Amino acid sequence: MKLYDCQIAPSPRRVRIFLAEKGLTMEKIEVDLLGAENLKPEYLKINPRGLVPTLELDDGSRIDEVVAICRYIEALHPNPPLMGTDPKSAALIESRNRHMEIDGFDAAADAFRNSAPAFANRGTQGVPKPVPAIPALAERGMEGLNRFFAGLESWLGENEYIAGPSYTIADITGLIAVDFAGWVKMEIPAGNKNTKRWYDAVSSRPSAKA
Amino acid sequence: MKLYDCQIAPSPRRVRIFLAEKGLTMEKIEVDLLGAENLKPEYLKINPRGLVPTLELDDGSRIDEVVAICRYIEALHPNPPLMGTDPKSAALIESRNRHMEIDGFDAAADAFRNSAPAFANRGTQGVPKPVPAIPALAERGMEGLNRFFAGLESWLGENEYIAGPSYTIADITGLIAVDFAGWVKMEIPAGNKNTKRWYDAVSSRPSAKA
Repeated sequence: MKLYDCQIAPSPRRVRIFLAEKGLTMEKIEVDLLGAENLKPEYLKINPRGLVPTLELDDGSRIDEVVAICRYIEALHPNPPLMGTDPKSAALIESRNRHMEIDGFDAAADAFRNSAPAFANRGTQGVPKPVPAIPALAERGMEGLNRFFAGLESWLGENEYIAGPSYTIADITGLIAVDFAGWVKMEIPAGNKNTKRWYDAVSSRPSAKA
Repeated sequence: MKLYDCQIAPSPRRVRIFLAEKGLTMEKIEVDLLGAENLKPEYLKINPRGLVPTLELDDGSRIDEVVAICRYIEALHPNPPLMGTDPKSAALIESRNRHMEIDGFDAAADAFRNSAPAFANRGTQGVPKPVPAIPALAERGMEGLNRFFAGLESWLGENEYIAGPSYTIADITGLIAVDFAGWVKMEIPAGNKNTKRWYDAVSSRPSAKA
């Protein structure tokens, strides 16, 4: 197996942390997103949607989308479990992981892609045609991040980790969402003690450096 | 088990079709989205994010997010399989299902929520505070739908169904995305014969009426 990766991008980092938590290593091929290598014909043969990460299996088939890649890895390497151990825990973790994606990651992406000068004409990822940034969408993203941080603080007041008593894929997505929010200068609010306690714990795991 | 549902909304229809394909029936509680019942305190106790569908288990725990709900049902009722039968097929179906969500459903939602008069101040689902529509985001959604239909035609030229030779959850999401695109008058392009062949097949299954 090999992973088409990009060191600076939030999405492939989710897979790298997942692999690190499993104690797995893998060949990685760096794709230069800033140089738009993901939109060149060579990479579009690998992933027609022009996105990273992509996992290539030894039989040549390819899986994209972070959670699909992680679930494949989880099936082959179930320990430590990061996506649940029975139907109910798996569903609750998947649900919470989606909240981290939609409320956190997507809001940060809206805020960042629609405000960063380097993305002025790259409003939609994977699209070669110029897509102008929408400043109002950046604002909507910032408001979404405020709600995200409020929700996170509430959940983490009830549980040690985002989806319950154990570290799971939802913590990986949550960590990446919080770090991505930092790209638009949105930090964990000063009074959010539960979130800070959790962030210190997950960001100091060795996997966070992956 | 019971399902908090809304007959007119695209997301809960995904779960209803999934249940119908499994031959399952379940108590359903209608939530009046147009009347903003989903944002009232009673429903926010059921789902703090103010969204439907939500699945309530007999032990009182609740699962939200469509795919998490479907995966729970799949685990309890594996036949007919709608989410894969081995790690590789499960990953490829999950990946393709995400494409249907991101490229199709989300684009249609952007186009609809940011152009329909009834949603002029409801730009973000589940948020009680007024969120003004962003006309430029509606346009971006329409352009996304053009790309979605092009991708769909290409994939369906290679496979009978969206994720391979069998009907799966990706076909349910694809069907809902195409129907949702119809809300903004975006129809399957006239020359897209593969998509029309597929759409006729999936929309004439009894489950499509669910």
